[in-house]
Amino acid sequence: MELWFSERQSTGVRLQIKVDRSLYTAQSKYQRIDILQTQEFGKILVLDGTLMLTEKDEFIYHEMMVHVPMAVHPHVRKVLLIGAGDGGALSRLLLYPEIEHIDVVEIDKEVIEACRTYLPNLAQSFDDSRVHVEIADGLRFVRQKLDLYDLILVDSTDPFGPGEGLFTREFYGNCYNALKEDGILVNQHESPFYPQDAKEVRNIYKKTRPIFPINLLYQAHIPTYPSGHWLFGFFSKRYHPLEDLDEAGWKEKNIPTRYYNPSLHRGAFALPTYVLDLLHNEELEMEIDDDEDED
Amino acid sequence: MELWFSERQSTGVRLQIKVDRSLYTAQSKYQRIDILQTQEFGKILVLDGTLMLTEKDEFIYHEMMVHVPMAVHPHVRKVLLIGAGDGGALSRLLLYPEIEHIDVVEIDKEVIEACRTYLPNLAQSFDDSRVHVEIADGLRFVRQKLDLYDLILVDSTDPFGPGEGLFTREFYGNCYNALKEDGILVNQHESPFYPQDAKEVRNIYKKTRPIFPINLLYQAHIPTYPSGHWLFGFFSKRYHPLEDLDEAGWKEKNIPTRYYNPSLHRGAFALPTYVLDLLHNEELEMEIDDDEDED
Repeated sequence: MELWFSERQSTGVRLQIKVDRSLYTAQSKYQRIDILQTQEFGKILVLDGTLMLTEKDEFIYHEMMVHVPMAVHPHVRKVLLIGAGDGGALSRLLLYPEIEHIDVVEIDKEVIEACRTYLPNLAQSFDDSRVHVEIADGLRFVRQKLDLYDLILVDSTDPFGPGEGLFTREFYGNCYNALKEDGILVNQHESPFYPQDAKEVRNIYKKTRPIFPINLLYQAHIPTYPSGHWLFGFFSKRYHPLEDLDEAGWKEKNIPTRYYNPSLHRGAFALPTYVLDLLHNEELEMEIDDDEDED
Repeated sequence: MELWFSERQSTGVRLQIKVDRSLYTAQSKYQRIDILQTQEFGKILVLDGTLMLTEKDEFIYHEMMVHVPMAVHPHVRKVLLIGAGDGGALSRLLLYPEIEHIDVVEIDKEVIEACRTYLPNLAQSFDDSRVHVEIADGLRFVRQKLDLYDLILVDSTDPFGPGEGLFTREFYGNCYNALKEDGILVNQHESPFYPQDAKEVRNIYKKTRPIFPINLLYQAHIPTYPSGHWLFGFFSKRYHPLEDLDEAGWKEKNIPTRYYNPSLHRGAFALPTYVLDLLHNEELEMEIDDDEDED
């Protein structure tokens, strides 16, 4: 028998991955969770039919989410990580001994449990004594926090389903308040290529621009995400991702990486012209949905 | 009826594109040629089942192949373009009035004819008086040339089938000889991600390194190519792709682009750590096939 996982990346585009067998499937309160064994990518995690991570290329996404702000902010002690039930971002944060406390807020405890069982290399990071897990809605959790974190990472699913609240203006505003006066927020910022994804890129950019004085996007090559061209948002109160990059300081820490390095850090902020146009072309501005749900 | 074009990108990975209808299909002396109308990517060109270009993302590949060397070399007058029957690279070269003469060497005249009929926006570039088309094997054509070109672009298919000869040490050596003393060669250099492609990246790098004093790779996000992470080789006798980049001079030319810009040019040469390891890790060196076919 041939078994293929198939993901619709856009209306007329699918990525298909050959599956050896299904390891786990469950319907939680929030979503369907699948873990599949594949030949090409090792184990893969799928939420509501959307590919979240593969063992083979997760290092790209997670290294770029964690090391970019960590090489810029000079003293990260306290971190908030939202929606990262797989432990991939967490395991990279734990490479920094100066980090003292990490709050992980994941809405769906069954994701963490499934990853602990089937992706232990990543999810064993939950056992570190610096890690404090809260099963909660990130939108609600961050509302009560003030002037607390050096770094917030938003490792969300897409802007529909359980992750929807993590793409609202209210959420970004509350993150601003939860950050210390020199804090940084990094989020996954979708892909600029397919039209529906590009619209989300514009929406996030439009919502975050009035809130953070420094608001820049950077990119990575992530083969299993739609188009392979993925964006991250770097939203900051004080530090600039290039001017304040401490290249020598970061290298001295001897953090092992397979994707990130300080030269690539600089290069990742150089966006293609069509992406710059997507963000700054005022003629397109009116097309954006102001899909706020301030509850 | 639903019709899907399906490409095997690696053993257990397929990209599928929904097809409205087939516009053209033929078996030439060298390969099967298909042009398909799709909803997501406009028209797409497929050679022997491998996707060569789509109307929607061809600008990324072709701009990166042409503008990177053109923004570095200060006086390109004569260009050799090998294996570019679709006219996409050619149309970008023609944006530079200082280019006086372009030899286009394509092995399969039926590719040019099909593209002239079905992709006229790109293939009309063949009508320019500066363009001289030679239907020939690029490997043989370049053998007879000495000290002639400022720039050679190798817009080949993959390292098997009709394009195979364009990946041999003999070919790269002959290109070196065909270039003037300050000439530049740019080639498509495959993808670093899937194991079979990564092996080709190492093979090309190993073959070109002893020939050209400057041998650097750069990358682009090309959604429809395997993994979306594509490499180009910048092989040069004198000019360095970053130190000799004439950012102001290039901007003054007012060349319209949708992907390329000089900041992105600099960023594109900053490679991920795993790609640097792929090129420079001596322990892997022995695994490379020395698949020379010096005929």
